[in-house]
Amino acid sequence: MSENISPFHSQRTSYEPRLPKALQGYARVEEVEGSVAVSDPDVQKLFPQTFEGKMVKLVPGDKPATTEPLTIGVVLSGGPAPGGHNAIAGLYDALKKIHPDSRLLGFLNGPIGVIQGDYIELSDELIQKHRNTGGFDIIGSGRDKIESAEDIDRCARALSTLGCKALVVIGGDDSNTNAAILAEELKARNSEIQVIGLPKTIDGDMRNEIIETSFGFDTAAKTYANLVANIARDARSARKYTHIIKLMGRAASHVALEVALQVHPNLTIISEEVEKRGLTLDQVVEQIVDVIVRRASADKNYGVIVIPEGLLEFLADFKELLKELSLMMKEHEEVLHAFHSDEDVRQFVNRHLTAESAKVYGSLPDSIQHTLLKPDKHGNIPVSHIETDVLLMDLVKLRLDELTQLGQFKGTFSPITHFFGYEGRCVPPSNFDAEYCYALGYAAVSLITAGLTGFTVYGQNMMASPEDWVMGGVPVTSMINMELRKGKMKPVIKKALVELEGKPFKAFAAARDNWIVEDDYHFVGPIQYYGPADLADARTLTLTYERS
Amino acid sequence: MSENISPFHSQRTSYEPRLPKALQGYARVEEVEGSVAVSDPDVQKLFPQTFEGKMVKLVPGDKPATTEPLTIGVVLSGGPAPGGHNAIAGLYDALKKIHPDSRLLGFLNGPIGVIQGDYIELSDELIQKHRNTGGFDIIGSGRDKIESAEDIDRCARALSTLGCKALVVIGGDDSNTNAAILAEELKARNSEIQVIGLPKTIDGDMRNEIIETSFGFDTAAKTYANLVANIARDARSARKYTHIIKLMGRAASHVALEVALQVHPNLTIISEEVEKRGLTLDQVVEQIVDVIVRRASADKNYGVIVIPEGLLEFLADFKELLKELSLMMKEHEEVLHAFHSDEDVRQFVNRHLTAESAKVYGSLPDSIQHTLLKPDKHGNIPVSHIETDVLLMDLVKLRLDELTQLGQFKGTFSPITHFFGYEGRCVPPSNFDAEYCYALGYAAVSLITAGLTGFTVYGQNMMASPEDWVMGGVPVTSMINMELRKGKMKPVIKKALVELEGKPFKAFAAARDNWIVEDDYHFVGPIQYYGPADLADARTLTLTYERS
Repeated sequence: MSENISPFHSQRTSYEPRLPKALQGYARVEEVEGSVAVSDPDVQKLFPQTFEGKMVKLVPGDKPATTEPLTIGVVLSGGPAPGGHNAIAGLYDALKKIHPDSRLLGFLNGPIGVIQGDYIELSDELIQKHRNTGGFDIIGSGRDKIESAEDIDRCARALSTLGCKALVVIGGDDSNTNAAILAEELKARNSEIQVIGLPKTIDGDMRNEIIETSFGFDTAAKTYANLVANIARDARSARKYTHIIKLMGRAASHVALEVALQVHPNLTIISEEVEKRGLTLDQVVEQIVDVIVRRASADKNYGVIVIPEGLLEFLADFKELLKELSLMMKEHEEVLHAFHSDEDVRQFVNRHLTAESAKVYGSLPDSIQHTLLKPDKHGNIPVSHIETDVLLMDLVKLRLDELTQLGQFKGTFSPITHFFGYEGRCVPPSNFDAEYCYALGYAAVSLITAGLTGFTVYGQNMMASPEDWVMGGVPVTSMINMELRKGKMKPVIKKALVELEGKPFKAFAAARDNWIVEDDYHFVGPIQYYGPADLADARTLTLTYERS
Repeated sequence: MSENISPFHSQRTSYEPRLPKALQGYARVEEVEGSVAVSDPDVQKLFPQTFEGKMVKLVPGDKPATTEPLTIGVVLSGGPAPGGHNAIAGLYDALKKIHPDSRLLGFLNGPIGVIQGDYIELSDELIQKHRNTGGFDIIGSGRDKIESAEDIDRCARALSTLGCKALVVIGGDDSNTNAAILAEELKARNSEIQVIGLPKTIDGDMRNEIIETSFGFDTAAKTYANLVANIARDARSARKYTHIIKLMGRAASHVALEVALQVHPNLTIISEEVEKRGLTLDQVVEQIVDVIVRRASADKNYGVIVIPEGLLEFLADFKELLKELSLMMKEHEEVLHAFHSDEDVRQFVNRHLTAESAKVYGSLPDSIQHTLLKPDKHGNIPVSHIETDVLLMDLVKLRLDELTQLGQFKGTFSPITHFFGYEGRCVPPSNFDAEYCYALGYAAVSLITAGLTGFTVYGQNMMASPEDWVMGGVPVTSMINMELRKGKMKPVIKKALVELEGKPFKAFAAARDNWIVEDDYHFVGPIQYYGPADLADARTLTLTYERS
């Protein structure tokens, strides 16, 4: 009872991730046949020092005759994702294999730690305690960016003072882009310090043809799927509640799609489809109402509806409303501040919106009308503060009340809303994420010893057993596009959205009609770290559809 | 991909719960030495037919020379709890062992199914699909009560028409009390139909010296503990949010206490302690504020605070307010309805409360003031509709704003609220609950063949391996007290509340100060059904402290 860590924690720290064959001995890099450097002249111009990199894979090499100790820095960037600690453990073990005197420095609380040179040296003991555990707490994370020339100078100084040969940035699309910029800028300053990125996001949007999946997605999606499945079983047992469940995923709906494929909720909204079809808020409400009415006709006054966190910004009319509001608030900021009564504000806003947007705005509950007029410190409309699940619940309720009055709905609607986000970000990594992250960290060291900079580590053939995974590096520049952001062309890694022509969505689209009235809920259970391989080593259905 | 059930579901249906030794062959009942029948004359008077029952245990017996097929009915009552399907599987297997032509009839959607004679016969196939799964959906559940003489007559008729030798009621304290009343009433009608109850509640309050634990508590508490642990790890990783987490448990705080023991949140409120110490809403708010201020001084503007669902009704001042409001609404219902403006209502309420209660009422946010004046269909104040987590968050925020103004708080407070309830009620039962429930169902059949009625099945020695569990039956009447309910003396099984002198609470009280500022979070992981025994066969810490 007075143990320092839980039995689960204790058991997990002794789990040994399997390594891909190439990493078991001493890996060397090999250029991938047919890979070409960046051809976009705009990207070339932005990355003159690093645009020529070509994709490499790691293959078994010979043990080097002599090896020197190596010092590497690592930093965690952005929201936590399951597996971060394993990525660091992989880095650590690979470094120690090169030379027992090698050092891994962990910069504290995100990129600001690099800028300020705040770090701790990672020890055997600390690493051991964190193997196969969730969280980013081993060194903390942060959302600062290394952007200004001054920040870059300070990073260069800190890394150089500490004797770091390289910095490994563990983060999502933005963080990997920033890693590429840092790599470029360091080279431009004649620094030999290398920068390598690892692909992290639980949203699953940091991936492409080369990077099969981002780390954390497997564990988080399985965690949410289990929660949704438990609630579905509850819905079917209690037979009286309609659960509206919002799942993490601001830009991409991969998490919602994966949960839909695993659990078969009665309705799952996918933002990308909503956008493609140009649906409005009203149309999405109608879609939900239709499901509830159909189920009520089958005497099922209960159900499970899944929506993605970012839905609102994909709705045709809501997007337009946001655009108009944003413009209005910039133009009339002072006028808006001067009003004393809510009624005056309402009238003013109404007058300055197009008829369509005024109608949408007017359809929203008071509290949301208010929220939309309170820009955050960056001057943006705080859409993420809107509880989309509650909003939809309210609008669906109104519509059902109307149908009841008209005699067109004889059922009952007892809604319960949920948001699952924080529950999944720091889960102990599934065996898949534990092994993937460990391999990512391990592979990063091989890319560093090969002298590469501005690369993101990737894993391929991931439906296979870890021994057969192909690990390597892809130049970040090769994934970069120029996009207009706040009026300026910026280099960005394109977020992987749900492809409506992709196999996962097609499988969903082909089956979903059968899930509306039938309770075809699948009960997926909590993540199993032990036991039968089809549980303990399961892949997400997204990966399965895409890669098998 | 097109399989009918998930791989987890498929694996779990083949899990075979271990049976207690006495049940492995043919069990017989043996009176427990020293057990005495009910002595309370009021209870005797209410249960003249059944009050003489004495506690029995099951011991290995001989195989009967001949056995006849048996028909038994089963009904699920109240909210779902993990293991219900296993209790039914245990009944089924035990019945089939007696004779392959035995039948198990499942009454549909709770007690109303018995009254109306709505049932399905449980088949091999149906049972197989539900073994070791969560939920109550195999036959549905309900909250109706079999109370009136007419309902009892109808039950008697339905059971007798169907040839049921007995009815097994799976439910909590109320349902077991009702089982006793039904047993009594059937006997009074010269019916030989027996009634046996099983102890179910995820809240953990249907237990006593004889019944070591109620089924479902193990699985649900572990599920919530894992969610709280994941959020704690997130809090420590992101270092910017204070999570206020409300956990199921309207009357007793066993779930919150178990989660506290497992995870070590920075603060856990236990309703029973709040009541004992006569704390007010304000004092609880101060307690939370104090933790936040202390952590902020240690540069920790994040944390995890756990509160039980039923907290409000244990607060001295809030209880008094509820009493006064309830009285006022009964006396002045029509006056209250006549008011047109909120302001008028507010003034009226203020005038009719004592100064203390008026102050508490006035301290509540508008929306909660409204909620409290909207009695439900039974005329009760809908306290459960109040989002206690949100209320506390708002009040804590106000107080911290004040302290900030006074220069006494220099930290930040970014709260996020959660309520975990539905997430835990239908989880696939842990191995413990799977085995316990299977044994409960199995044992019920032995009590029935022994001719007992009005008994609740119990399990003892449950820290040991299932083979060594002692199963038996305790007369419900022996657990019954007479209590004043809505002005009438009613027979009730006393809910087991958290004992402040009990070992689990004492262990918590001795350690909790160390958890306030230090992040001593324990990461317990999701329930494991496979793997190391200290994970797959773990007991709750509540049971461990109480029974080892």
